[in-house]
Amino acid sequence: MVGIKRRQSETNEKRARMLISCPDQPGIVAAVSRFLHEHGANIVQSDQYTMDPEGGMFFIRIEFDLNELDRRLEPLELDFAEVVADKFQMQWSISRADYKKKLAIFVSKEDHCLLELLWQWQAGDLDADIAMVVSNHNDMRETVESFDIPYYHIPVTADTKQEAEAKQLELVDGKVDAIILARYMQIVSPKFIEHYPNRIINIHHSFLPAFVGGKPYAQAYSRGVKIIGATAHYVTEELDGGPIIEQDVQRVSHRDNTDDLKRIGRHIERIVLARAVSWHVEDRILVHQNKTVVFN
Amino acid sequence: MVGIKRRQSETNEKRARMLISCPDQPGIVAAVSRFLHEHGANIVQSDQYTMDPEGGMFFIRIEFDLNELDRRLEPLELDFAEVVADKFQMQWSISRADYKKKLAIFVSKEDHCLLELLWQWQAGDLDADIAMVVSNHNDMRETVESFDIPYYHIPVTADTKQEAEAKQLELVDGKVDAIILARYMQIVSPKFIEHYPNRIINIHHSFLPAFVGGKPYAQAYSRGVKIIGATAHYVTEELDGGPIIEQDVQRVSHRDNTDDLKRIGRHIERIVLARAVSWHVEDRILVHQNKTVVFN
Amino acid sequence: MVGIKRRQSETNEKRARMLISCPDQPGIVAAVSRFLHEHGANIVQSDQYTMDPEGGMFFIRIEFDLNELDRRLEPLELDFAEVVADKFQMQWSISRADYKKKLAIFVSKEDHCLLELLWQWQAGDLDADIAMVVSNHNDMRETVESFDIPYYHIPVTADTKQEAEAKQLELVDGKVDAIILARYMQIVSPKFIEHYPNRIINIHHSFLPAFVGGKPYAQAYSRGVKIIGATAHYVTEELDGGPIIEQDVQRVSHRDNTDDLKRIGRHIERIVLARAVSWHVEDRILVHQNKTVVFN
Amino acid sequence: MVGIKRRQSETNEKRARMLISCPDQPGIVAAVSRFLHEHGANIVQSDQYTMDPEGGMFFIRIEFDLNELDRRLEPLELDFAEVVADKFQMQWSISRADYKKKLAIFVSKEDHCLLELLWQWQAGDLDADIAMVVSNHNDMRETVESFDIPYYHIPVTADTKQEAEAKQLELVDGKVDAIILARYMQIVSPKFIEHYPNRIINIHHSFLPAFVGGKPYAQAYSRGVKIIGATAHYVTEELDGGPIIEQDVQRVSHRDNTDDLKRIGRHIERIVLARAVSWHVEDRILVHQNKTVVFN
Repeated sequence: MVGIKRRQSETNEKRARMLISCPDQPGIVAAVSRFLHEHGANIVQSDQYTMDPEGGMFFIRIEFDLNELDRRLEPLELDFAEVVADKFQMQWSISRADYKKKLAIFVSKEDHCLLELLWQWQAGDLDADIAMVVSNHNDMRETVESFDIPYYHIPVTADTKQEAEAKQLELVDGKVDAIILARYMQIVSPKFIEHYPNRIINIHHSFLPAFVGGKPYAQAYSRGVKIIGATAHYVTEELDGGPIIEQDVQRVSHRDNTDDLKRIGRHIERIVLARAVSWHVEDRILVHQNKTVVFN
Repeated sequence: MVGIKRRQSETNEKRARMLISCPDQPGIVAAVSRFLHEHGANIVQSDQYTMDPEGGMFFIRIEFDLNELDRRLEPLELDFAEVVADKFQMQWSISRADYKKKLAIFVSKEDHCLLELLWQWQAGDLDADIAMVVSNHNDMRETVESFDIPYYHIPVTADTKQEAEAKQLELVDGKVDAIILARYMQIVSPKFIEHYPNRIINIHHSFLPAFVGGKPYAQAYSRGVKIIGATAHYVTEELDGGPIIEQDVQRVSHRDNTDDLKRIGRHIERIVLARAVSWHVEDRILVHQNKTVVFN
Repeated sequence: MVGIKRRQSETNEKRARMLISCPDQPGIVAAVSRFLHEHGANIVQSDQYTMDPEGGMFFIRIEFDLNELDRRLEPLELDFAEVVADKFQMQWSISRADYKKKLAIFVSKEDHCLLELLWQWQAGDLDADIAMVVSNHNDMRETVESFDIPYYHIPVTADTKQEAEAKQLELVDGKVDAIILARYMQIVSPKFIEHYPNRIINIHHSFLPAFVGGKPYAQAYSRGVKIIGATAHYVTEELDGGPIIEQDVQRVSHRDNTDDLKRIGRHIERIVLARAVSWHVEDRILVHQNKTVVFN
Repeated sequence: MVGIKRRQSETNEKRARMLISCPDQPGIVAAVSRFLHEHGANIVQSDQYTMDPEGGMFFIRIEFDLNELDRRLEPLELDFAEVVADKFQMQWSISRADYKKKLAIFVSKEDHCLLELLWQWQAGDLDADIAMVVSNHNDMRETVESFDIPYYHIPVTADTKQEAEAKQLELVDGKVDAIILARYMQIVSPKFIEHYPNRIINIHHSFLPAFVGGKPYAQAYSRGVKIIGATAHYVTEELDGGPIIEQDVQRVSHRDNTDDLKRIGRHIERIVLARAVSWHVEDRILVHQNKTVVFN
């Protein structure tokens, strides 16, 4: 979109974020915080969750500041693996706060979720790079290109699905950290998902697990619910069954017909998806089995 | 409960409420309002909903004031049937605002929904008479009797269910306008329901249609939802499938285990049930097929 | 914005909306509905509110369908004035549902409220015409012009304020039905307001009457509130004191600094303003003294 | 209340909670967690907040398990003071999770907040002991005594206020950890407050800072707000000006008169107060200047 300069969100070149999951046992926090302190890092935020103090899983997210992060992060990571991570059987990662995750947005014909992401990105509220938009239709090309974002039109039919996914993979491979299905109305194959485990986010237009599958607003109208919702989740092999990241709802009444529900729902969808994407790119989400731990 | 005098909600001895459902056609509002005006009634509130102006259903709720209601309501009803209702194929009813509907509350062992209704009744916020409490357990006898409300203990087992329902029916028959299942953990038989069509209100401890059936909080925990809810609905033959009256929700997080969800849910349940019961006793609900029109 | 065709909201060429305020007395609904019926109009929706059955004000909003509305509306209006309105001392208006109210949007440098209105307009969710955007800055010219909407830059300084308002008035006079202050950071003079009584809508970035005046998010942060909000209201002489149309809120925490509150608040502001504008253009709002009756 | 056995909330005899506020500097988390680990304590939950990494305040709440807590807590506290707290200029406290804080509830004539606290206490949801109820009226004596809780009637008039507060102080002194003003309609003097700094919780029946002072619902009605709220806060010398602990709101409309607002508000008040009290007794609140940090 011309005429509006994109605001730069403030980044902190010495800030890093650490995510850890491991079986709980005494001394984890002490070991990690001591390690960071000894390496000159200052913890500025930490969130922790223990599923069950007796033998459950332990999750922690730490934001720390480290001078000369550029030079010192890699040795710190090597040390951490050796000194701490192995001992506690940790799954862990560290990312730099000033690294903007690269996103591909997949979209079909409904534009509201895409536009919300573009708008938040432009306003500096979404701390990521939108590397490309991929669509099975050509409708939104001009809009997307007016943001100086590449737009790829890859039609999908029942016959060409496999081929289309191959093209998509080629586009995103190595260039994209996460894929956002912003009302992309094609089912993504398990084979495709394998390339981006817990890194594909979908918005489903119902309050899952109510109204799985197609036409959820028509289902909601037919059931006469008094509240409708939307659900952002990681995509897994099970349709609409992956780990839920965020949900929100809005009150409706008998006066609202299916079209009204769609209109009201569009608003919920774009908010819920935008929140989920923000949390993902800010490394606020840990996945354990089929659930998320969200430190927001 | 001793020590607190029950507040009397203000009633209006000349106020009546009219509920009408009929196929839509031109002139209904004109006919009804003219009829009321000619009979000396003053409309103080009216709510109307037309499902579809082309051949849909028409619903209206009217509150009107009529001097000497005592004497004049019956002739007005007779006239209305003849002059207006037949012509438009109306399903209709008129009730006096100062008539307090008589309720039976059915409960098992969880007390929170019962206590909320008793508390609201005592505070004058629930404009009804609680004629009796019926339970398959004896646990809440003293509490209920301290409110000067009769308590009937009717145990239910797989073997005695039919017999128990016969006893329940005998208790309520002719004495009760509506039955509130305030966490009554027995399934009510279709035969029983027939006696109180759209007059039995149940609270289900999930955001229906998610988590139908047993242990919804355990189901919700297992699915990792970010919002939980409760649903008040009229009871029909289909388990947890009747017309939804009211729903509400509350945000939860990964930190909340099943017990937390139950605790948070208890609060939603009592609010949602209390709202649904209030709307029912204030004649604010019309049922059409499997949905409600709620004029609140 | 190029590339997206604006969806046309469905309009109904025979639908009209009637708004009436008058002192309550028996027979109003009967008189109005009889009048409409006799003129061949079919009431498809009506909402009514009586402030106090004993001598209060009566408000009603009626949607009706009338064949050949084009030809028959004017005579109907003339008749209504004579036959009904005078007798009941009504303030009233009728508008055609397919007439799109013309809006001028005033904006300064914050773009989110403007963009939301443009987006909803483009999506067909805002049933109005955006006739022009007027700004005391030039920043958003290209964006606005990419929607094919005229953009007028009228700088305002302390010295030139009177002159600037004269220019604004000239622009809008006769061309605009309502003015939306979409984060327009200038105080509008009483003289200007006189030209658009109850037709200028402002969004204030706080939950009024908390935090009247400047820098409400800084005020909110300093007070340590746990919920922030936004308020859309008609503009009157009293700063931030006009009739409230809509408010909404969002939960915040100690973690949110003033910038976070602004970011969260931007989202509430655009939703609240968009709702208020929709209700205004759909003739859902009646103003009585310093309050609104909103039939939504 | 007879007939309902009070459920015991599960307590953990080896669980303790630590609250720390201090100026931020590197190494705090490392020092604390190392200290706890070396003393055999296992951190099961920790929440941390740094106001500003450059020279702001640091707040942390830690839950830890320690075997033989009974015997080992006191030496641990002595050590902590010497080894850690002094070095970082900490304000800190440790409390045992199985110690139930003793509460005095002050109430006037409105019973809903008192009843909610009694109900949650009885249900095991409020992990505290209600040591006494103190009232300037005698109305709720029987209710309170039916819960086996002592009730003290201390009338207050303009003339006897000083004397009444002296009596109240005598009652609570040494026997009560916190005082809950559950719609206690007397202003508590600064002298009284001095005895319980940040340990007196009041519920104000508006969304502060809107509608400070008396009759907030009448004020809200008169202003025509679309949402009403309630605020729980610590009591300071400034009327309705102390640190806000929790707020919540509910949507209202033009149809709701002052009495409706009161009725709707009662519900918000009891929920908000109950949440604030729960967080206080679970040591989830840190106060800094005129704000709270709530780790919930």
